[in-house]
Amino acid sequence: MLVGQETEISIIHDGHVTSAEGFYAGGVHCGLRRKKLDFGWLFSSVPAAAAAVYTKNSFQAAPLKVTKDSISKEHKLQALVINSANANACTGETGMVNALNMRKQAADAMGLGEHLVGVSSTGLIGVQLPMDKIEKGMMSINPAAVDPEAFEQAILTTDTKTKHTAVEILIDGKPIIIGGAAKGSGMIHPNMATMLAYMTTDADVEADALQHLLSRATDKTYNMITVDGDSSTNDTVVALANGKKGNHPLSPSHPEWEKFSEAFRLVSEILAKKIAGDGEGATKLIEVMVKGAATSDSAGKIAKAVISSNLVKTAVYGADPNWGRVVCAVGYSEEPVEPDSVDVFLGDIQVVENGLPSEFSEQEGISYLDQQEISVVVDLKQGDGKATAWGCDLTYEYVKINASYRT
Amino acid sequence: MLVGQETEISIIHDGHVTSAEGFYAGGVHCGLRRKKLDFGWLFSSVPAAAAAVYTKNSFQAAPLKVTKDSISKEHKLQALVINSANANACTGETGMVNALNMRKQAADAMGLGEHLVGVSSTGLIGVQLPMDKIEKGMMSINPAAVDPEAFEQAILTTDTKTKHTAVEILIDGKPIIIGGAAKGSGMIHPNMATMLAYMTTDADVEADALQHLLSRATDKTYNMITVDGDSSTNDTVVALANGKKGNHPLSPSHPEWEKFSEAFRLVSEILAKKIAGDGEGATKLIEVMVKGAATSDSAGKIAKAVISSNLVKTAVYGADPNWGRVVCAVGYSEEPVEPDSVDVFLGDIQVVENGLPSEFSEQEGISYLDQQEISVVVDLKQGDGKATAWGCDLTYEYVKINASYRT
Repeated sequence: MLVGQETEISIIHDGHVTSAEGFYAGGVHCGLRRKKLDFGWLFSSVPAAAAAVYTKNSFQAAPLKVTKDSISKEHKLQALVINSANANACTGETGMVNALNMRKQAADAMGLGEHLVGVSSTGLIGVQLPMDKIEKGMMSINPAAVDPEAFEQAILTTDTKTKHTAVEILIDGKPIIIGGAAKGSGMIHPNMATMLAYMTTDADVEADALQHLLSRATDKTYNMITVDGDSSTNDTVVALANGKKGNHPLSPSHPEWEKFSEAFRLVSEILAKKIAGDGEGATKLIEVMVKGAATSDSAGKIAKAVISSNLVKTAVYGADPNWGRVVCAVGYSEEPVEPDSVDVFLGDIQVVENGLPSEFSEQEGISYLDQQEISVVVDLKQGDGKATAWGCDLTYEYVKINASYRT
Repeated sequence: MLVGQETEISIIHDGHVTSAEGFYAGGVHCGLRRKKLDFGWLFSSVPAAAAAVYTKNSFQAAPLKVTKDSISKEHKLQALVINSANANACTGETGMVNALNMRKQAADAMGLGEHLVGVSSTGLIGVQLPMDKIEKGMMSINPAAVDPEAFEQAILTTDTKTKHTAVEILIDGKPIIIGGAAKGSGMIHPNMATMLAYMTTDADVEADALQHLLSRATDKTYNMITVDGDSSTNDTVVALANGKKGNHPLSPSHPEWEKFSEAFRLVSEILAKKIAGDGEGATKLIEVMVKGAATSDSAGKIAKAVISSNLVKTAVYGADPNWGRVVCAVGYSEEPVEPDSVDVFLGDIQVVENGLPSEFSEQEGISYLDQQEISVVVDLKQGDGKATAWGCDLTYEYVKINASYRT
C-alpha cells in the first residue's frame, strides 16, 4: 500500500470534499428523486484553478459542454452544481439551453460570474431536465454550508454508499490537503448513470500543471476501473485548487511537485477503488496488477482485459480459483505475451508458473476468494511495464438490477 | 434474409456436416465425460483441400499447432479427430506430445498419412489429456460411419444443442453441397471451452482460394458473435473441400465464384448464429446491424460494442426497450459517430431519431423484446459502411453456470 511506503502522505480520518481549506458543500432534495437528496453544490471561497477530464463517449451530455466552456475562459471555477436522477444527455438543443440556465441560475444564486460555475447531471438519459425542480434546488443553495455528506449523498444514483476521502502532505512546510468525493457508474431506470468525481485542494497549483496532473492520474485510476465496461455520456472528473494555503505555486518545476502528484494520484486511486467496489450488485473489489509487461501501456491493456472479463468476474463471485480464465483473458488482450513465461497469483497463492498450472491447494484458493478484496497478479516476465486495474464481481444482483428494474 | 434474395441457394432440410458427398463422421463415448459422447471424427473419402482459422489468443493450445502443421504440408486434410472435456491447453511439452500422438493414432486408425489428419480438443484447461481414454476412442473410429449427430454431440461442452446445417447450389451445373457443424463458446468446470466449427463441401476449390474465403467469411460471421467477449485458447474453424462433384476448380477467376462464396458465407452465418443463440444461459438471440457508418470496419466495431454491452444484454433479457444503453455503447465504441444523425430501431420500432428519443409505445417495445430473436438496427447516416453482429442476453443462468459450477 502506497501510504506505507510514502509516510509523508497521511490519510485524514473521515476526509471529505470539504476537508481542504476554503471549500464548502451541501445538498438538498429538490424533487427529482422520490425522497433522496438529488441536488448538490460545491463552493470555494475564492476562484480556484480548475482542470477537468470528460468521457470519450461521442454522445457527450450538455452539462459537460457547459463546464468545458466555463473552464475555457480563465481555467478557473469557484462552484459546481450537480443534480442526480436526470443526466440531461441526448436532449438536443433544449438540453443545452437547460444546462446553460442551470449554470446561470447557480451563478446568480452564489453571486458569481457564470464562467466560474460548472454543472454536472447524472441519471436518466433522453428526458429533459424538469427545470422547475432544478430552480427549487437553486433556491436552497447556501454557499457557506459545510455539509459534505449531503453533497456526497445528492450526487448518487444506484450507488449504495457515499465515496469520499482526503489526505494531507507538507508542501513548502505547509499542511496541504487534497480531498474528494465521487459517485459510481451503474444503471438506473431507464438509462445509464455516470461516474462523477470532484477533487479539491487548498494548494496553489498552476492551472496547466493541474490539468496535466489530473489527466495523468485519471489514466492510472478512474480510467482503470470497470463495473461493466460501459463508459457513459456524462463521466466527468473535476479538480479544483484554490491556493488557500499560500504555498509557492505548484508545477513540475516545484521541488515538491512529485510529492504533491503522488498524493493527488492517491486520492484519485482511493476514490476510484471505492467506485469499483460499489459497482452494481458487487460483493467484492477485485484488483488486477500486471507486471513484467513490455510497456506500461501494454500492462494496462492486459489488466483491463482481465478485469473486464465476465468469466473472471463470475469466478471471483463464485470463489472459484479459476486461473484458466485469467490466463485466457491475458491471451486475448492482443498484447505481446510469451505464454511460457507467465506467472499468475491469487493473493499470495501462485496458481500459474511459466504458463503451466502450479500445484496449489484448491481449498486455499477458495478461502482466499471468499474475502471481500481480491488481488490477482499477473507477471509476464518480459519487461518493466506495470499497471493496476480495479473492478468488481459479476453477480445475480447485477443482472437483477439491470434486467428487471420494473419489478 | 439472404435465402430470399438469393434463391439460387437452397437450405437442405436437416443438413449436416456429412451432407456433402464423400464426407463421413461419427462419435463415441471414450470416458472423458461421464456419460455424454466425447470423441468424434470427420472423414473424407479422398484428401480434401483444407483451410483453417485459429484463435488469436496468445495461449494457443497444442492441437491447434498440430492441425496447423498438418495443413502446412500439402494444404490438405482427409480427417479430423476431436475430443471434448479436455482442451489440452496450457499443458506444455507433454501436451504437445499428446496432441502429436493423437494425430498419429488417428492416422494409423484410418490408414492415412499423419499430415492428412487434424486434431481439436475442447474443455478443461491445464490438465493433461488422459491418453488411455483417447486411445479407447481411437479404437472405435469407423471411417465409414455416417452418424453426423454422434459427431455433433461428441464435440459439445456446455452447449444445450447440436449445431449443423447444409446448403445446395449449382456450380458448373452440378449440385454442390456445403455443410457444417459447430459447437459454442462457454465455460465448463473448471475452465473455458471453445468455439469449434467444421465446414465441408464436395466442390473442388483451390486451397488458396478456400483459405481466403474462409478468412473473409470468418471475419463476417464467427468473428462477429459474442457470448461473453472472451475468446478462448482453442477456437478453430476448419473448411474441407474434397472435389467429389467434379466441378471446374473454384477460385476467384471462376465465373460462379461469387455464388459459391455467398453460399459458403451463409453456412458460416447460420452456424455462427446458432452458436450465439445457444450462449450460456441465453434465452434470446440478438442481432445488431449497424449501417450508414463511415466504413464497414467502423460499422463492425460499433456493432461489436453494442452486442458486447452487458447493459444491452441485460436490457434485452429484461425486455426493457432501453435505447439509451444502445446509444451509449455506440458512443463509447471510439468510432467516428455524429450523435445528431443517429437512428436506432428495435425491430421495426424507431426508438431514436437523429440522436434524440422518438415517440414510441413502451408497451410495444416490451412486447417486441419479449420475442426470442431480437433485432437492433443502428443507422449512423454518415456513409455506406455496414456490419452485423450476433450475441445473446445476459441472464441469471449465465452467472449461475459460471459462478457456481461446484453446486
